[in-house]
Amino acid sequence: MRIGIVGYGNLGKSVEKLIDDQPDMEVGAIFSRRATLDTTSRVLPVADFAQYKDEIDVAILCLGSATDIPEQAPEFAKYTPTVDTYDNHRDVPRHREAMDKVARENNTVAVVSTGWDPGMFSINRTMAEALLPGAKQNTFWGPGLSQGHSDAVRRIEGVKAGVQYTIPAEDALDRARKGETEGLDGKSAHKRVCYIVADEADQEQIEQEIRTMPDYFVGYQVEVNFIDEVTFEKEHTGMPHGGHVITTGDTGGFHHMIEYTLELDRNPDFTGAVAIAYARAAVRLQEQAAHGAYTVLEVPPYLISPTPLDELIARDV
Amino acid sequence: MRIGIVGYGNLGKSVEKLIDDQPDMEVGAIFSRRATLDTTSRVLPVADFAQYKDEIDVAILCLGSATDIPEQAPEFAKYTPTVDTYDNHRDVPRHREAMDKVARENNTVAVVSTGWDPGMFSINRTMAEALLPGAKQNTFWGPGLSQGHSDAVRRIEGVKAGVQYTIPAEDALDRARKGETEGLDGKSAHKRVCYIVADEADQEQIEQEIRTMPDYFVGYQVEVNFIDEVTFEKEHTGMPHGGHVITTGDTGGFHHMIEYTLELDRNPDFTGAVAIAYARAAVRLQEQAAHGAYTVLEVPPYLISPTPLDELIARDV
Repeated sequence: MRIGIVGYGNLGKSVEKLIDDQPDMEVGAIFSRRATLDTTSRVLPVADFAQYKDEIDVAILCLGSATDIPEQAPEFAKYTPTVDTYDNHRDVPRHREAMDKVARENNTVAVVSTGWDPGMFSINRTMAEALLPGAKQNTFWGPGLSQGHSDAVRRIEGVKAGVQYTIPAEDALDRARKGETEGLDGKSAHKRVCYIVADEADQEQIEQEIRTMPDYFVGYQVEVNFIDEVTFEKEHTGMPHGGHVITTGDTGGFHHMIEYTLELDRNPDFTGAVAIAYARAAVRLQEQAAHGAYTVLEVPPYLISPTPLDELIARDV
Repeated sequence: MRIGIVGYGNLGKSVEKLIDDQPDMEVGAIFSRRATLDTTSRVLPVADFAQYKDEIDVAILCLGSATDIPEQAPEFAKYTPTVDTYDNHRDVPRHREAMDKVARENNTVAVVSTGWDPGMFSINRTMAEALLPGAKQNTFWGPGLSQGHSDAVRRIEGVKAGVQYTIPAEDALDRARKGETEGLDGKSAHKRVCYIVADEADQEQIEQEIRTMPDYFVGYQVEVNFIDEVTFEKEHTGMPHGGHVITTGDTGGFHHMIEYTLELDRNPDFTGAVAIAYARAAVRLQEQAAHGAYTVLEVPPYLISPTPLDELIARDV
């Protein structure tokens, strides 16, 4: 399978790197607005995507969810199967519908909102809730770097460098596992831990601004740590993330729990790995002429594996 | 959906109980060899299954894997969609093929080998392995009651009552999570813990026989506890089980881990809950005229949920 990578930010670079490990894939081309990229892969102008459509089997749209995906994704879906990682949860139904319309009109396949949340977590939420009677379900994010909160912290005057990690509160995890979820919400379930580089004179004011920032920090357990630049560079420039989907249910007095955990040293790598796996599914759905848009909930699990179905059944079932 | 329950052992009873919690299902009939059962559901002779086929939409085959499923399952699949929990891993390919043939010839759907292992664990093995480059994967069972090992223990002379729990070794779980799986096998990864009721005079001999029982105990960390009958009745008559599928991979120096955990207070209840969810999928596949046999790897996740797809996409994705 020849993969087209559309966009060359963190996600696009991860996808490019990870395709090397796939037994059945190669990079067909990277489509970018920039004329030259620091890569040995073939680079083509994204404006000429239509012209090169027969040279790739599927396009992984490594574009931002804020505006790029909603505005541009349907255009790509006219020409080839696509996979995206669109992560604006509330807008997924609209996005799926827009992609479905284009894909059906043009006999292509569009797999939307892959990645881990949405993505793997979505599958686990749906399946665990379907299995356990009277299901109570909580999603926890972290320990992990929150890009939006880190940006917010860095905008504060005096902050030279800063990151924010979202960390599930241990007692909240315990309660979720026991099914004691009443009153448990996103705020009580997560801690927000900041590591900041700043002059000592500014630290009190910075901490105050963080703690009183509405939406981002107010109402959360907040921890603010000031560290030196060397420590920051050494320990806080990675992009770890992960989380848990915890579901409990009761079968007439018997407690049951399903927990799905991700621990990811590099968030865009895992998101890219999921997109690659669903690119494989998209190519296969295209071969079956099963045109239209799909969320991960609609894709049979075996379609994401490079291993033939017979072998999977003999090995994994 | 009207569910036919074939067989009325632990699993059949769990399925009957759990159908009450389903918004879209009712018990159509229980098919049994026995003329009377202790139930308020309709009971029909299993020999007359064909005659009543139009009164149910799907049959959940709550039969033993040792001989009943291989011998009898294809016969039921002639008349209605079926779901089974056939758990002889090595024989699943043959069973799927046998069911596929009958289902295609008779325009039915057969979902085979549901439950948790095979079943939910199979899905997680396949998906996690497909996602993580250079995947290392281990399945751990327990803490949980092992039926086969408990039977073996109870056959020893002098044992008045006995159970055996399989428990994952903590250090093995840690190693699996770190990806340090070299040399890790089923034996080094699990402890076998027995609780036995026996006269004091027999205890030394019993412990000796347990520890030297080939296949079942030799090579494992074994713990033998002698307890009194009251404690046994109070604490060791449940059927808890569960386990973990742990998969790690590396994306160019970055470690990633996926862990799927089940903690089940009552094994047949959870197995039944999974079979019920896949019965829903079987009815829907039948409505789509998608005849043939399916493992859980081949069923799109949303088909097991009572919630409509649009709602799932808006809520879970």
